[in-house]
Parts: sequence; structure tokens; C-alpha cells
Amino acid sequence: MAGDTLGQVFRFTNWGESHGKAIGGVVEGCPAGLELSESDLQPALDRRRPGQSKIVTQRKEADQVEILSGTVDGKTTGTPISLIIHNKDQRSKDYSEMAKLYRPSHADFTYQQKYGIRDVAGGGRSSARVTAPTVAAGAIAQKLLLQAFGINIVGFVKSVGDISTNIDPLTVSLKDVEANPVRCPDADVAEKMIKRIEQVRKQGDSTGGIVECVIHQVPIGFGEPIFDKLEADLAKAMLSINASKGFEIGSGFEGTQLLGSQHNDPFVNQSGEVKTASNFSGGVQGGISNGMPIIFRVAFKPTATIIQDQSTVDVEGNPTTFKAKGRHDPCVLPRAVPIVEAMAALVICDHWLRMKAYL
Amino acid sequence: MAGDTLGQVFRFTNWGESHGKAIGGVVEGCPAGLELSESDLQPALDRRRPGQSKIVTQRKEADQVEILSGTVDGKTTGTPISLIIHNKDQRSKDYSEMAKLYRPSHADFTYQQKYGIRDVAGGGRSSARVTAPTVAAGAIAQKLLLQAFGINIVGFVKSVGDISTNIDPLTVSLKDVEANPVRCPDADVAEKMIKRIEQVRKQGDSTGGIVECVIHQVPIGFGEPIFDKLEADLAKAMLSINASKGFEIGSGFEGTQLLGSQHNDPFVNQSGEVKTASNFSGGVQGGISNGMPIIFRVAFKPTATIIQDQSTVDVEGNPTTFKAKGRHDPCVLPRAVPIVEAMAALVICDHWLRMKAYL
Amino acid sequence: MAGDTLGQVFRFTNWGESHGKAIGGVVEGCPAGLELSESDLQPALDRRRPGQSKIVTQRKEADQVEILSGTVDGKTTGTPISLIIHNKDQRSKDYSEMAKLYRPSHADFTYQQKYGIRDVAGGGRSSARVTAPTVAAGAIAQKLLLQAFGINIVGFVKSVGDISTNIDPLTVSLKDVEANPVRCPDADVAEKMIKRIEQVRKQGDSTGGIVECVIHQVPIGFGEPIFDKLEADLAKAMLSINASKGFEIGSGFEGTQLLGSQHNDPFVNQSGEVKTASNFSGGVQGGISNGMPIIFRVAFKPTATIIQDQSTVDVEGNPTTFKAKGRHDPCVLPRAVPIVEAMAALVICDHWLRMKAYL
Amino acid sequence: MAGDTLGQVFRFTNWGESHGKAIGGVVEGCPAGLELSESDLQPALDRRRPGQSKIVTQRKEADQVEILSGTVDGKTTGTPISLIIHNKDQRSKDYSEMAKLYRPSHADFTYQQKYGIRDVAGGGRSSARVTAPTVAAGAIAQKLLLQAFGINIVGFVKSVGDISTNIDPLTVSLKDVEANPVRCPDADVAEKMIKRIEQVRKQGDSTGGIVECVIHQVPIGFGEPIFDKLEADLAKAMLSINASKGFEIGSGFEGTQLLGSQHNDPFVNQSGEVKTASNFSGGVQGGISNGMPIIFRVAFKPTATIIQDQSTVDVEGNPTTFKAKGRHDPCVLPRAVPIVEAMAALVICDHWLRMKAYL
Repeated sequence: MAGDTLGQVFRFTNWGESHGKAIGGVVEGCPAGLELSESDLQPALDRRRPGQSKIVTQRKEADQVEILSGTVDGKTTGTPISLIIHNKDQRSKDYSEMAKLYRPSHADFTYQQKYGIRDVAGGGRSSARVTAPTVAAGAIAQKLLLQAFGINIVGFVKSVGDISTNIDPLTVSLKDVEANPVRCPDADVAEKMIKRIEQVRKQGDSTGGIVECVIHQVPIGFGEPIFDKLEADLAKAMLSINASKGFEIGSGFEGTQLLGSQHNDPFVNQSGEVKTASNFSGGVQGGISNGMPIIFRVAFKPTATIIQDQSTVDVEGNPTTFKAKGRHDPCVLPRAVPIVEAMAALVICDHWLRMKAYL
Repeated sequence: MAGDTLGQVFRFTNWGESHGKAIGGVVEGCPAGLELSESDLQPALDRRRPGQSKIVTQRKEADQVEILSGTVDGKTTGTPISLIIHNKDQRSKDYSEMAKLYRPSHADFTYQQKYGIRDVAGGGRSSARVTAPTVAAGAIAQKLLLQAFGINIVGFVKSVGDISTNIDPLTVSLKDVEANPVRCPDADVAEKMIKRIEQVRKQGDSTGGIVECVIHQVPIGFGEPIFDKLEADLAKAMLSINASKGFEIGSGFEGTQLLGSQHNDPFVNQSGEVKTASNFSGGVQGGISNGMPIIFRVAFKPTATIIQDQSTVDVEGNPTTFKAKGRHDPCVLPRAVPIVEAMAALVICDHWLRMKAYL
Repeated sequence: MAGDTLGQVFRFTNWGESHGKAIGGVVEGCPAGLELSESDLQPALDRRRPGQSKIVTQRKEADQVEILSGTVDGKTTGTPISLIIHNKDQRSKDYSEMAKLYRPSHADFTYQQKYGIRDVAGGGRSSARVTAPTVAAGAIAQKLLLQAFGINIVGFVKSVGDISTNIDPLTVSLKDVEANPVRCPDADVAEKMIKRIEQVRKQGDSTGGIVECVIHQVPIGFGEPIFDKLEADLAKAMLSINASKGFEIGSGFEGTQLLGSQHNDPFVNQSGEVKTASNFSGGVQGGISNGMPIIFRVAFKPTATIIQDQSTVDVEGNPTTFKAKGRHDPCVLPRAVPIVEAMAALVICDHWLRMKAYL
Repeated sequence: MAGDTLGQVFRFTNWGESHGKAIGGVVEGCPAGLELSESDLQPALDRRRPGQSKIVTQRKEADQVEILSGTVDGKTTGTPISLIIHNKDQRSKDYSEMAKLYRPSHADFTYQQKYGIRDVAGGGRSSARVTAPTVAAGAIAQKLLLQAFGINIVGFVKSVGDISTNIDPLTVSLKDVEANPVRCPDADVAEKMIKRIEQVRKQGDSTGGIVECVIHQVPIGFGEPIFDKLEADLAKAMLSINASKGFEIGSGFEGTQLLGSQHNDPFVNQSGEVKTASNFSGGVQGGISNGMPIIFRVAFKPTATIIQDQSTVDVEGNPTTFKAKGRHDPCVLPRAVPIVEAMAALVICDHWLRMKAYL
């Protein structure tokens, strides 16, 4: 079975290739009666689109989304919502060089081997461009979650290479994140990140980093043990994002060095509500949200596309070299933030509806 | 929808509670004609069961698995394979204290809030005991993968607290792992880990750690973009294991500090096969296995059960203290190794069959 | 993907073979807090079991069901409910003759060809015996539906061969159905049916018939267009029952001969509720329940097992003859009634929970 | 969970409303390397579209399908195939009368009650118009099946009202079916059917009928017991088609009147292949295809839209009358034929790929 659908109740099927006629997707399971128009989706897409600042790729794609079905008079009807984004940049250039070889750490080789055929233009289906409809779908989920529970999802760039902020993620607002093009809410650190990104771009190189994300106000009870635990589905969603290599929740990898007596989160009664005094659990216990903020981090590798000579093989296995051309992201982190948020929204929304089904 | 099923084609449904009559599960989608008997499953279960060494819980459970269906004359028939493990330790003790409060960093609170009812005895469904049938199912998957492709899955304990080995994971064999009770193939480090575990146990405390795992010989092509990428489903499987807090593949979180020119894996022709000179990708590119070893790590928090006074609240929200009694694991890492391997086997086997379906 | 799971939210996975150690299944998605014990399930099983009357097979199976998980103190906990029925009649007899040939209109040939191996004893997985756990699961669904909405499902034998009743299905109660062993609520017709069944049995032959079923009190709104319409999932469930060859709802095949002006069901206001004056729709419009009784019929072919010489081929393709031995149902209809009801309950319950998820 | 997706491996998700901007769907799981362009899909759509003959609705919709993704250089790539059909006839007319009442035996009432909102124009999502993308998807499935196995699916109109043909379905070819606008391959009967349809149209009335369908050359082994039997999934698919009220396979309802000794299909050796001498089973035994032609019938009720005064209620429950206007099908049967074939193709193709997965 192909893997282009995410979720079980709030279900999103993504389709399209980087340089095809269009990209898009279908949202099923959206409750009826939600006010919804393109203007609800476009802001998130604008945070993801190329060309939005000097530190991201300068390609030009407006990424204008259109709703083709599922609403009437500006409200959802409970039927599938079809989203489409027409590609400006269709298969036009000369991809004959790229067709002959495998770019290092790209998906060229694996797609070719798996399917026996690949859409070379712009990376085809393996391009991060196909996250655009996902971001639009995530905006629908986010609107539902905000209306129902006041759930707010705030992601930000925690590190670029070895430049890192230790800002308390609970204090970060969307406004802080959007205050600079690198989407790091710590102004001083952001400055350094931007310089680093410009520097690696000048070298034709690239850099990775970490996105941290907080989901505020998730009610107690989301998550379906024993396999579809909330952190398990978040982990899956995050590892499905292009270039991601790791996920951790709460105390994560560093927490393995604590003792149980340090790590356990004592329950306390806060004005009649059961909360925990610390939050090493990251908002999830036994796979189920416990009412505390959900905090997680996602690792992104340095972009595979670099403007340097690299050794590789051609499709016949002969050694060759490859040097990318054109406009690329030297660092995916700033544009990854809205994708991480969208994926989180899709997971949380699906788990809300899954729980509603039988409890 | 409840979340007790893993996989789509090779599908495993787990059922049971820690101290109920039995625990078990159903495997669907196992190809017909595989030689299979309980003796194929028991060794993996014996590596997971309590009481196997001095550094794990001393509870006594033989964890004897029985195959109830799906085979005839010692061969699978293509029909569901029902697995059962009868519990020796059924609801017998006095759980009235535990019923009245929420143990810190356990699932007591979230289960009670989500379902409005919980099976207190031994943690009920949230107990790591329910991974036993999963380990048995994983042994079936592992047998299939070994026969079909020579796939071999080797997990080991990389760290306990801040004690860590840097052994090359590609060189580790099952025999090395089983050479000591902590399942760390580096003898010197293992010694220190064992001492540390004994020390924290004496303190009534607990410690966490990291499991590293290599999957050898996965053919090119496993993994279903764009959401069911191989690393995404591995991440999900690992984060669904009790006490896990993080997953990383290949270069993981540390790799975010490399430049693209350092991190990209150059393709090379090795005796006619396309391989990569380095393996920062961890065996997966674009969500699809590339024929290199798959390498990943899983973070486990320190066990929540500690024999120390802890502050918490009771089910009415009043402050109280709790101190666990009885026999517990001061460190889950040694017993987590076969669980990590089993989950990996289930994911890889499912992706093999998923790909077979349409390619 | 194997097909042993029914439903999406209220999900039932069936396992086992006719003469294996046991048969059983796992129910996922049952709401927590339902009072449930074996005594809720046994009555339905007793209506299905062999040996209950002189006109069904005289084999002896008590079909005693046991709940292995998912309840505590007699209430469901929201976790999987594992059901098991131990087989008395395990692989013991000599099946060497049956192993060598294909019984006409049985599943011997197709199982052997599909899987390359088959469990000969008692028909293995293809035996109607494996409907027993399904009937138990259906009893859980039926209890939920009755408590939540007063939904009551009443099936009965409408015809045996060409002997048929025209009783108004809306007037039939369980008591009427259980008044005689053939489960036809029309006493005179029942008498004739019983005679017919005894007659065909004496001839070593078999007969088919039709089950009619009414589902009372289904609320408006169950059913998920455009593919998972309520009648579509009912049709699927019914056609999955052993020996069934047809399904029709409301006016069914005969209704094709009416004009639209005769067939349309006029809406009327009945004491403030919108109802329809006629019910040719059978309780479903546009794939969604409309609040009227759901009425459908299922066709069952004559039992394939007959005590007469029949020509067939052996596993090598050579012509041979076969004559069944032992105790068999000359007519499956009386025992099919609880199976039809159970399948209907599983479908309705699943659609209730599916709708709850997002509406 | 919403129900807009059909199939598990060859999976089709349908979206759109009758008078929205567009209708369409997404095909997942189509093998890579299939030559595919719009010209493969359009012929089936042309057989379904309005205005094709004098006995169907005279509305004008070209139903031009466009492939938006999933192919490169005219070949499928293994990625999702997005299909779109732009609507000519968008929400433009005055639907204020229809918005105020519930048309008898339409889905107006159930949609309004279920979702609390409905798209009135053209029936919105409940319109048979949304079968158009399904027909396009079915054409892809049909092309795959034809290439792989020579599978050929031939449906035809067996009856209109009480006018019926007894033509041997095995002898019918597509050419015979297309020889007249009613799609009945029996010329004399077709003539009568056409007259009948014209007659009921003149009366502002409508008529139902039966489609019979044969699937030639299905290999042995398709179908997944015990719930996803081949006939079960065919039944589901057929009952999900607008206006269908019944399904039967092989001997169907009439076969219930036969004795087992008449009904059993003796196996015979035909030039080295095991076949059955008769085919009361309809090509499926034990839920699995047996290599004989698959033969089934689908009952369609008379069209709900009639140009006559009908009593009904308005949305506030007050009695009122309704008389449809405009251009409608007095009989859906001729246009139902390609829909039945498409649904059958989708089911068979999915079962082929499902079996490939694990066998």
C-alpha cells in the first residue's frame, strides 16, 4: 500500500509532484459547519513558500491554494475538502543531466530503484514542495483545534548548526517567531543564525538544525495505546518531513541521563486541576496527553542540495561528479517551522476525533 | 479508533492486561508455508521476560507462548496466527492503595481520565508486560525476513545514564550482545553499566539509557513516501514502546551540526552495486531503504517506578505520597533490546509486503 | 492484506480454524464502562451452536466463550476484548480422504490454490464454525446498541426452498422466532419448513432459503457516503457469511418493477417527527439511515455438504467421486439467523461510532 | 470516519459535489510503468455522461477528465494519480425551493439531518454525478487487469421494469451492449425497453431495472476470507452505487430454491485445468475466485426524480408538495452499466494487489 494518506478520522491524502501541473490533497473527516475559505489556509502557506526572505530559496511560487469541494456558502459540509495549488514552475527546464545520475543524499537513487521510473523535474514526488498542500490541510486542523479547545501550536528554530537558543519554549509566541526571517524567537541568536546561513550559502554549502515545538492546551486523553500513542504518531509525522532525522519529546535523549527520582513528574493540585510540577514527560504519559504542554524537537539534516562538486555515480553505476545549479535553500529550518506545526495539527486533530469515536 | 494494531499488510493486533487471565495477539498477513512453531518464538520472549538476570526485575513469569491458530503440520496457512501467553500473576494482590492515587510519570492518571475506569493491577494495559506478545509476533517477522533476504536485526544497549559505548554498531553480533546481562557488547562499558544499575537499585532509584539498533541486509526499496516513509514508521514503532522518549536515524540530532558537504553520502560503485561511501543517512533516503545498513537509536527514560517517597495526588486531587513496593526494573534497557528488535522486524516486514502489493 | 477484520472503529478481528485448538477474536473500540460478562454472549452463541435441535447438525460443541481481556470488575475498560472458544473437536479424525480431493462447491479447491496449503480438518478456516466468535462479538455490539438507542435486531427465516412466509417483518419478535427450531415466526409455514428439512436430510440432500432481518430504532444519520453507505456495509457483511449468495434492502429486486411514482416514500410529519409513509427505501436513503426500520434479506444457497455421491476431481486433477459422511446441516437457515443479526449489529455499531468521530 | 475511499491497496478517494467547481479523485497504489493518458479514461466517461442518447438526461456535461499527477512521459510512476473533471454546471440556478423541502426518496433529508448542512445544488455530494471520477478510476483498474490477465468486464441491462432478457451473459460483448442506447444486448428486448423508458418519461415517471455483469478471466485466488470475501466486496461496491437496492452472485435469490444436489458445481478436468461443470457459485467459492467467470446482478430502483406532484414535508416538518423540474433520467440503467463495470474493476484490482502483498 502506498503511503500518501495521514490520519484515520481526520484523514489527509496528498498528491502531486514538484513540477507537475498541480499539487494538492483531500481532507476527509472534517466536521461540518466550520467556516472555511482560502483565506484561512493562505497565511500558513505564505510562511512555507519559497522567496519569502533572503535566507531561503529565491524561487518564485505564489503557492495560491484553492478549495474545490467540501464547502457551501463558506462552511464545511462534512464531505471531502479538495485542495489544489497550481504549479507555476512546470516541467520546462532541461533535466537531462539530472536524469543521468543520482544526486548524493537525495531520493533519486531510491525512487529509481523502487519504482523503476522517476519524475526527474524538481525531484518529482520526493521534493519538499509537496508539503505545501499538507500545510494547507494543517491549517484546517489548526482552526478546528483552536475553536474547540484553544489549542495553539508554536514551533520555532531552536538551532542552526551549532548555534542554539535555550529560550523557554512555553514563553514563545507566533509573533516572536515571525519577528525575524530565521524564525528563532531569541533575537540575538537569530542574528547569528542568519549570518551563519548567509555564510554557508556563499560557500555553496548548507546547514541543519533543530525545530522545537509546543502544543498548548491539549485536553487530557488524546492518544491511543498501545501502538498509536500520541508521541508515536507525532514521531511518525515528524520523521515523514523531508530532511528530518530525529524526534524527541519532553526530556528526550538528554533525559536518559537523569535518575528516576529526578525525572518523575510529581502530580500537584493546581486550583482544582491535576497538573505536574515538572514536565519531563513532555505532556504525554502512557501515550496519552496529560493536560500539560506537549513539547518536542525535530532534527533536520543539512540540505542535500549544495553548489559544490560532489562525487557520485550515474544511472549506469559509473563514477561521476555533480554540482547543483539554481536557487536552493541553504537551510530548511525557517521553512520547516510551518510544516512541523501543520503535521502536529493533523496528528492532534486526528487523535481528538479518534477518541471522540468511542469515548 | 483504538490503537492496538500495528502494520497494514503484516498486521499485529495486541490484547491483554498485565494481570489479566492472559495476554496475546493476532498476526494477519503472514505468508503461507512458513515453518513455524512455538520454539521459533520462545527465545525472543526469554530475552524479554522478567527474572532472567540479577539486574532486571525478579518477578517470575515464564512467558510461555502458545500458537492457537494459523498453522497446520508446523506450517503457516496464510490465515491469522493467534498467540497467547497465560499470566501466572493474575489479579490477586491488594491494589487498593494504588487504586486511590496516581503514581508519578505512570499512566494511571491519563488512563483514568481518558477511559473513566482503569485496571489497577500491575498497571493493566499500560504495563510493559503487554510487549511480550509483540516480541513473539516480531519473532515471526524476523524469521520471514531472515529467510527471504538474510535480514538480521541487532540491537544493543549503547548507554545507561551517562555511561556510554562508542562501539561501531555494524560490528556487533547477537552473541556479543548476549555476552552479559546488560546487553552492551562493549565488555568494559558493560561492567560499568551493571555496577551503575546495581547502585541505583540499592538507592531505590532508576536510570535511563539508549538502545542502538542495526538492520542488516534490507533490500533497496522499502518505505512508502510521503507519509509512511521507512524512518517514519520506525520512529512510530519505537516511540510506542513503553518509556521511550526519542528516536533518531543515521546522523540524528548530532548530524544537525554538520555541513551539507560533510553530511552528504557520496554514491560509489562497489563491485557492481551502488552503495554510499558514508552512511549519515542511516540506510534510508527519501523515506526508502537504499541498501545500506539501517541504523537508529532510541532513548528510554529512567523507569517511573522507584522505591522512594514521592509526592503526588490521590484520585480526588488531594496531595499524598507514594512509595512503590515489590520487584521492579531499575533500568529497562536490557529488556528493551528484544522489544526494539521486534518492533523493527514488524515494521520492516510490513513494508516489504506493502511494497510487494503494487510493485 | 488479509481480510479477517471487520469494521473501522468498532473493529473485530476473527481468528481460528474449525478443528484447531480454539477459535476466537478481538474486539477493539468498545466504549469503556459497559457491563459485560460471558453471560451476555452465551445466549447468542447457543442459538448458533450445533446440536440445538433435530433439524440442525448433531455435532456436539458447547461453544463456551471466555473473555480474556478488556474488562475489570465486570466492566469494559476501553481496551481490546479478547474472546476465546476452545474447540472440543480438534484434529483427531482421519481426513486423509478429504485431503486428496476437492469437495464440490466447498472452499477446498480455492484455499488450496490460493495458499498452496490448507487445513483439511473440518474445512479449517473456511468452516462456518468460525462464525461463532463473530456471534459473540455481535452480542457485545447488540448490547451497546440496545442500551444507547433501544436498537433491536430481529432476523428470521423467511423461506426454505420454495416454502415462504409473507409475515410483516415489523411485527416479528425474538420470542416468535424462537418459538420453533426453524426460526420462522409463522407457525404454519414453520411446520412445513421443518418437514421439508427433514425430508431433504433423509435424501442426504440439502436446501437453501432466505433470512429477513429488521433493525428497529436506528437513529437518523448512520452511514458514510459515498462508498461506506450503510446498505453497502450491510451487503458486504451479509455476503461474507458462509453460503450467502445475495442481499437486498427495502424493495430490493422486486422493487425494480415499480414506477418511481409508486416507489418513492413520501415524507410525512408523525407527531413532530419526520417519517416516510411507505418504506420501499428500507430505512436508508442516500446511504444514510432515515429513522425508519431497516429491512433487508439475505439469500443462502443449499448446503454444499450432501450425503450423496458427487463427481469431482482429486488434487491431481483426476476425476473421482465423493460422498460426505457424518453429521451435517441439511439447511443452514435456522443457525444463520443469529449470524445475520450479529453481523448487522457489528455494522450498525461501527457506523454509530464512525459518525460520532467527526459529527 | 468518512467513507469516500474505496479499496486498500488500489485505493480510490473520491471528492466533489454535483455543482461545485469540480469533481475528482485520487488513485493510490497503481503500479508504476503503466502507459496512461486521459484517452484511456475518456471512453468510459463518455458512456456514463449525460446527454449521450435520447433516453437519458439531456443535461450537457462533457465530463472531460484531466490527469494532474502520477505520470511522467505518459507512464505512471507509482505515485498518486489525481483526476479532475471541471463542472460546467456550477451553482448558478435558483435552488431556493429545493432548499426548503425534502424531495421524497432523495438524500436531502438524511444529509440535512446527519451533517446539519447540505449542498442543495444538484443534490451536492449525494448526486450520481460524483460517480464520474469513479468511472475514470475504474478505467485505470480495467486497463491494469486487462494487461495483466486479460480480464474483461462486461455489464449490460438485463431488465427495465418487468421487461427482461434471458440472454446468456457469457456470450455478451461490449459491442453488443453498445449496439443500442439502453445497453441491452438482446435487440428485441432492447427495443421494448427503450419504448418503456420513453413512455415513463412522457408520464413524468421513472422505472428501475437490473444490470447483469460478467468478469471474464479472473485468475484463481482473488478474495480475502473471512470478511473481505470477493463477493462481499463486490456487494459492498454495488450497493454503494446510487439507487441500487440489491446484489446477487451466481444463483442468487433464485438459487435458494434448488437442492444441494442440483446446486453444487462438480469439478471437472478441462484440458488440464480444474473447472466446474456448472457455475451456480458465480465464480467464487469460499470467498475466493475459482477461475470460472464471475457473474452477478445489481438491482436499481426507479429514479427518485419524477416530474409529478408528490407529497412531502418542508424543512420545518410542514406538509407540502414537490414537483421536479428540468432534465432527468427516467431510468438510470443505461448509464449505470459503466458504473457497475468501474466498481467491479476497482474491487478486482484491489483484491489482486492485496493478494500479491502476502502470497
